[in-house]
Amino acid sequence: MQRAPYVSFPVRPLRGRRIAARDVVESVLREVRDAKLPAGARLPPVRALERQLGLSKNTAQAAYDELVARGVLEAREREGVFVARTAGAASVASPLVAPPLPELTPPPPIGAGRVPTRGISLSTVFIDPDLLPSEKIADCARSVLRGPRGMSPWYETQGHAPLREAIAARLRKRGFEVDAAEVVVTTGSQQGIDMLARTLKTKRVALETPVYAHARFAFESTGVETIGLPLDPFTGPDLGDWSRRLGAAKPSLLYTVSSFQNPTGYSYSSHELATILELAACHDVALVEDDWGSDMLSGAEYRPMLRLLGGPSVVYLNSFTKKLWPSLRVGYLVAHRDLVPSLVAAKRVSTLGNAWLTEAIVAEFLERGYYDGHLAALQEEMDRRYALCLAALEELMPEGVRWTTPGGGPTLWLDVPRSVDLAALAQRLAARDVLIEDAASQFHGSEAAGLHGFRVSYAFSKPDALATGLAILAEELRAG
Amino acid sequence: MQRAPYVSFPVRPLRGRRIAARDVVESVLREVRDAKLPAGARLPPVRALERQLGLSKNTAQAAYDELVARGVLEAREREGVFVARTAGAASVASPLVAPPLPELTPPPPIGAGRVPTRGISLSTVFIDPDLLPSEKIADCARSVLRGPRGMSPWYETQGHAPLREAIAARLRKRGFEVDAAEVVVTTGSQQGIDMLARTLKTKRVALETPVYAHARFAFESTGVETIGLPLDPFTGPDLGDWSRRLGAAKPSLLYTVSSFQNPTGYSYSSHELATILELAACHDVALVEDDWGSDMLSGAEYRPMLRLLGGPSVVYLNSFTKKLWPSLRVGYLVAHRDLVPSLVAAKRVSTLGNAWLTEAIVAEFLERGYYDGHLAALQEEMDRRYALCLAALEELMPEGVRWTTPGGGPTLWLDVPRSVDLAALAQRLAARDVLIEDAASQFHGSEAAGLHGFRVSYAFSKPDALATGLAILAEELRAG
Repeated sequence: MQRAPYVSFPVRPLRGRRIAARDVVESVLREVRDAKLPAGARLPPVRALERQLGLSKNTAQAAYDELVARGVLEAREREGVFVARTAGAASVASPLVAPPLPELTPPPPIGAGRVPTRGISLSTVFIDPDLLPSEKIADCARSVLRGPRGMSPWYETQGHAPLREAIAARLRKRGFEVDAAEVVVTTGSQQGIDMLARTLKTKRVALETPVYAHARFAFESTGVETIGLPLDPFTGPDLGDWSRRLGAAKPSLLYTVSSFQNPTGYSYSSHELATILELAACHDVALVEDDWGSDMLSGAEYRPMLRLLGGPSVVYLNSFTKKLWPSLRVGYLVAHRDLVPSLVAAKRVSTLGNAWLTEAIVAEFLERGYYDGHLAALQEEMDRRYALCLAALEELMPEGVRWTTPGGGPTLWLDVPRSVDLAALAQRLAARDVLIEDAASQFHGSEAAGLHGFRVSYAFSKPDALATGLAILAEELRAG
Repeated sequence: MQRAPYVSFPVRPLRGRRIAARDVVESVLREVRDAKLPAGARLPPVRALERQLGLSKNTAQAAYDELVARGVLEAREREGVFVARTAGAASVASPLVAPPLPELTPPPPIGAGRVPTRGISLSTVFIDPDLLPSEKIADCARSVLRGPRGMSPWYETQGHAPLREAIAARLRKRGFEVDAAEVVVTTGSQQGIDMLARTLKTKRVALETPVYAHARFAFESTGVETIGLPLDPFTGPDLGDWSRRLGAAKPSLLYTVSSFQNPTGYSYSSHELATILELAACHDVALVEDDWGSDMLSGAEYRPMLRLLGGPSVVYLNSFTKKLWPSLRVGYLVAHRDLVPSLVAAKRVSTLGNAWLTEAIVAEFLERGYYDGHLAALQEEMDRRYALCLAALEELMPEGVRWTTPGGGPTLWLDVPRSVDLAALAQRLAARDVLIEDAASQFHGSEAAGLHGFRVSYAFSKPDALATGLAILAEELRAG
C-alpha cells in the first residue's frame, strides 16, 4: 500500500537546546491553532520523528499519545497518525496556487547538432564512428575500472591531473612550451569557448564569417557582441579588411579556427597566421585559436598554429570529440597561467567539474600511446575518402559549382551559383533522403563573404553512400 | 630525427577548378615575391601536397623540380624542400609578435569545493565515499561496456533517453506528473542552475541567505542580480518579511532548497511551502526547487516538495552527485515542457551535451532497482552518525553554542557566540588538522540572518574522526 506523504512541521525547544515531548505537543497545538496543519494531514511516524529530532526513545510516542487523548490527533491502525477531522484547517486537499512559469529567452536559431539517424548526411562534421577506436576505448575503460584505485569518487574542476599531464606532454612534442598547470580539461571545445565568453571583461569578440555557429551562440548567449571577419575560402581572407574592421569595432578577442576552419575547410597559411598575430598586437586584441583541425592533416605533418607562433598568450582550444569518440565529451584548453584561475572558476560555476571516468579513460588512451597511431590510421582512410569525394565532385558537378580543397579535416565547402535557392534545394534533397545543412546561422547577418553553399563531409558517410548522395545533389542542382 | 614543421601557403587554380603543376609554381613564386615565404622555410612534402590538393601523381614533384631549377627552392636530401637562402624574406626565425592576454574577470571569492585530502573535514557536504556503492556502479559500467550496442558514439543534449525515462518513472512513483520529455540531464545540479541563469529574461533572482554559494555565483556570474531572503534555521523563515522583500525587489525567480537546505540544514514545513507557493503567485515570481535533500530523509519517508504541491510550473532540480557517486557528475532538471527547448539550447551552448557513458551507467543503476536500496542503507548509517553527532555536541559544546536538528541530509548548522572570531577559530583548528568552512560567501553582504557559524557534517568523517574533530572544536571554542 502506498501511504500518503506526511506533512512536515517545525518542532523547537521551548527551553535549552534539547527537544522534549512537551515541545512536540506544543508545536502541534500551535500549528493546528494557527491553521498550519490541515485536518486529515498525516504526521511523521513516531520513529522517523524521533530519529530526525534526536529524541530519546518513546518521546514522540508519548507526545502523540497526549495529542490523541486531547482529540487533536487521531491514530489509524496501519496508516499512521493524522490531524483530527475536527481540528486544523479546512482541508488537506485545498488546491494550492501554482506559481508562474519563468520567462526564458527563446532558443537561438540553430540545429540540434545531432547526427540524423537515417538518410545520407552530407554536411555533418562528425567522422564515421566505424573509423574510431571504440574497442580500444572500451578496453581503456575496463582497465580504469579495475585499476588499483578503482573509480575515484572525486573530480577535479581543472581536470584529472594525469590527463592534463598527458595532454601537456603531447603538446610539448609538437613544440609548445606548456605544462599541466596551464591545461584545463573541458566538456568538448564548447565549454572552453563558454568559459572564455563568460569571463571576458570587454564583451566584444571578432569571429570569422562564416563561423562555427555554436561558438558564435556561446558568445552571444552570454551577452558578448560578435563582429564578423569575412573569410572567403577560395581567395583567403583579406587581412587588410580585417585590420580595418578590428580597428573600427575594437573587439577584445579574436576567435579563429586556424586549420580546416569549420565550416569552410580553410587553413590559414603561415604568412596569414603571422599577419593575424601582428593585427592582434597592433589592435590590442587577444587571440583564441580553436585547433580542432591540426591533428587531421594528410601526410601526418604538423600544421602551423597560432599558439606555436605567438606563444603562451594565445589561448588554445582542442578536443577529442571528433577525432576520438564524440560521446566522451572530453576537450581541453591551454591558457597562460595568469588566466587559469579565472577560467577554472568559470568552469566551476558552470558545471563544478566533469566526470572523472571519461577523463581517466582518455588519459589511459593517451598514456598507452594509442592516439597517434589512431590518428594516422584515421587519416589514411580519410585521405582515401577525400580523394574519392574530389573525383566524384569533378565528375558530377555542373558548371558554376566550386569547392575548396582543404587537404585534411572531415569537410569541404561546396559553393553553388547564386541562382540556386538553398532552402528549396535542401527540401528537395531531404525528400530523397539526402540531408544538407542550412548554413544561415554560420553567417553574421547578411555578410556571406561572397559565399552561397554548405559543408560537404567526406568523413562521415561510407564512400558508396557519399557517391550516391553527391549524385543526387548534382541531379537536383541541374534540375533546379 | 624531428623535422621542422613546414610552412603552409595557398595554392589556387588560375583557370577552372582543377589545380595543375603550373598553379603550384605560380603560387610559390608569388608568395616568395611578396615576401610571404621566408628564406629557409620548409615546404610541404610532395606526397602531402598532392594528397591535400587532390593533385594527380607527380604533379607536385614536377612543380617543385621547376622551382628548384629556377633557384627559388632547394632540395636537401632526407630533409625536404626549402625556400632558397637567396630567395624570400629575411629569415624564418624572425621573432613573431605575441598578442595581448585577454582580460578576464577575477574568480569569485569562493573555495574550490574540493574535499581536502588530509585532516578532519568538519564542513564538507560530501558523504563518506565508503558509504557509496562503488562496486555496484563499476558493475553497471562493465555491463554498459559489454552491452549489445556497446558504447554509443553519440550523445543527446537533453540527456540519454533511457536515463530520462528511469528518472521520470521514479518521480512518478513519488507523485509527480512528469514524463521523460520534461527531464533534462545535467552535469550535477550546478549546470541546471546555470542553464536557468543564462536564459532568464528578467535577471533578478531571490535566494535564501545563507545560501548555497555556488548557486549564488552561477546567477551572479551570468549577470543576474541576487536578492537575499533571510533564513534563520532556528526560528524558520519570516515569510511576511520575505513577502515584503519580494514585493520591493520584484525578482523573476525564487531559488530555494526545500529540504535540508545547504548550508543551514533547514527543511521547510508543509505550511511554509504552501505559503511560498502563495507568495510566488502573489508576486509573480517563478520557483526553482533544488531538491538535493528529500532522498536523504531518516525513516525513508517522503518529504513535502514544492514541485509536488505546486505542480509542473515549479522548476525542479536534483542530482546523483552526493547520494550516488560524486565524480559521475549526473544530475537532472524537471521543467514544464514549454521551457525545455530554451533550457536544452542553454545546455547546448554551454557544453553541447554530456558524456554518454556516465549517463548510461546511472540509467543501468536505476533500471536494476539499486537506487532505493542504496538510499535506505545509506540513510541507516547516516542516522547512526547523526545520532552520535548530536550526542557528542550535547556532551562537548560549551554554553552559547547551538545547532540545528535537520533529521536528514549530511550536515547541520552550528552557531557560536558572536564573540567568537570565526576566521581566527578556523586558523586555530586548521593548525590542529581540523577544517571548517568559511561561510562568508554564503551570506548576501552583511545579511547574516542572525547567524554566526558554519556547517558541520556528520556524513563525511568516520564516527571516531568526527568525535575527535568535535572535541577539538569544543576545546578551541572554550579556549577562544
